Amino acid sequence: MTDTPDFKTLLAFAHDLADAAARVTLPLFRNLPDIDNKATDGFDPVTQADRNAEAAIRILLETNYPSHAICGEEFGTKDGDDFEWVLDPIDGTRAFISGIPTWGTLIAANDKSEVKLGIMDQPFTGERYFAASGLGAFLRFDGADKKLSCRACSTLDEAILATTSPQLFDKTPQQDVWNTLSDAVQLTRYGGDCYNYALLAGGHIDLVVEQVLQPYDIQALIPIVEEAGGIVTNWQGGDAIKGGQIIAAGDARLHKAAMDILNG
Amino acid sequence: MTDTPDFKTLLAFAHDLADAAARVTLPLFRNLPDIDNKATDGFDPVTQADRNAEAAIRILLETNYPSHAICGEEFGTKDGDDFEWVLDPIDGTRAFISGIPTWGTLIAANDKSEVKLGIMDQPFTGERYFAASGLGAFLRFDGADKKLSCRACSTLDEAILATTSPQLFDKTPQQDVWNTLSDAVQLTRYGGDCYNYALLAGGHIDLVVEQVLQPYDIQALIPIVEEAGGIVTNWQGGDAIKGGQIIAAGDARLHKAAMDILNG
Repeated sequence: MTDTPDFKTLLAFAHDLADAAARVTLPLFRNLPDIDNKATDGFDPVTQADRNAEAAIRILLETNYPSHAICGEEFGTKDGDDFEWVLDPIDGTRAFISGIPTWGTLIAANDKSEVKLGIMDQPFTGERYFAASGLGAFLRFDGADKKLSCRACSTLDEAILATTSPQLFDKTPQQDVWNTLSDAVQLTRYGGDCYNYALLAGGHIDLVVEQVLQPYDIQALIPIVEEAGGIVTNWQGGDAIKGGQIIAAGDARLHKAAMDILNG
Repeated sequence: MTDTPDFKTLLAFAHDLADAAARVTLPLFRNLPDIDNKATDGFDPVTQADRNAEAAIRILLETNYPSHAICGEEFGTKDGDDFEWVLDPIDGTRAFISGIPTWGTLIAANDKSEVKLGIMDQPFTGERYFAASGLGAFLRFDGADKKLSCRACSTLDEAILATTSPQLFDKTPQQDVWNTLSDAVQLTRYGGDCYNYALLAGGHIDLVVEQVLQPYDIQALIPIVEEAGGIVTNWQGGDAIKGGQIIAAGDARLHKAAMDILNG
């Protein structure tokens, strides 16, 4: 085990990683030369932007923190010491290829038990959401950092709920559970990918429910939501760090009310 | 009947209208003091931003073109001569209140038979889509105007389809028709409001299908899509100017293929 750098240093470095990714992704947004499919059973676009952005991040990581572990969507896992970087260079590739600016670059670092820092960067809109344990969650926009804070919302009938697509819930029994939840809230929004969690941290929406998430889809978003006062767990109320079925809420009372529905 | 101003002059004036609306909407985006409901049978948020933005536009219209007719979402119809302005100050109020930057200010002008110019302004991302008959369609972004052009896409299985919400199609028989169409395309995206039509004009998506649109929801988008080489009609292939069930496609072959499904 090597010495763990302090979070402020790591967070500053993580901003450099996001900058490096943006230099690859942004010129290709709405300007893709090619799309290929990695899934044989369906449409799962992986762009050159995705691969090149992760490569750009990994070069910096391996240069500056060669002992750290890495887990990336595109290039897999590299073993390392007690600190692990978890990367999704373009979360929301379907939004990316459709020209919709709700994708984001996700960068997380965990100590193998807890996520210590996270960044969600949306370079087209110029929004960068970031957080580190004990340091708060912030939106960097237009040259200023604004502290993020979830809003109070105690009951489902006042809540705005978001998820990336109804197709996440196209099979029973999850479809029934989803429909019950969607019927109980004030407003359901589809689309959004990682952007939904950022909006939750900003106090604009109240609840995000998804499933089939990978660790790299959610880890960066955990400190952003938690440092803004929200809560992120799996549907059973356990740790979200491994992905799977995820519920994020800005208000613990709403989290409980939604959990009651999700668990039938 | 008064003399009709030339389109270039009107288009320059329409940009002033969009600027005036943005000065009202943007400071309130993600910063709303209040939300009230105008529908008694459901959740239909109308914000102060919506009303104030339309008022700001109407003041300029009534000062500069007092003889023109106006049809606005918030303040209704004003009779006038052979030119009519059709306004939706915030198309996508649900996106607006949820902090999602896919809403837009829609400004159209028609000669009572054909829409002659249209603007879709998204002031948070800084994108302004605009078009006028015979002058082309453009995206103004970051200080430059870029000509818009729909992309070729001849078959449904290669197409990206978008609509604002699956809840637009939650009743039969439209639900069955929608599901058949969605199953036939490569990728379906939900969310987006007016932004979807702009992405279609930009050549990023291929097909937008919606229903229950008002004239002010669609008129501004007609010249933007058509001047980019696309096609906008109702589901029966007729004029889209009155709203209703709308289909927009970037490629006439795709429009025909989708129409075949929509009409069973």
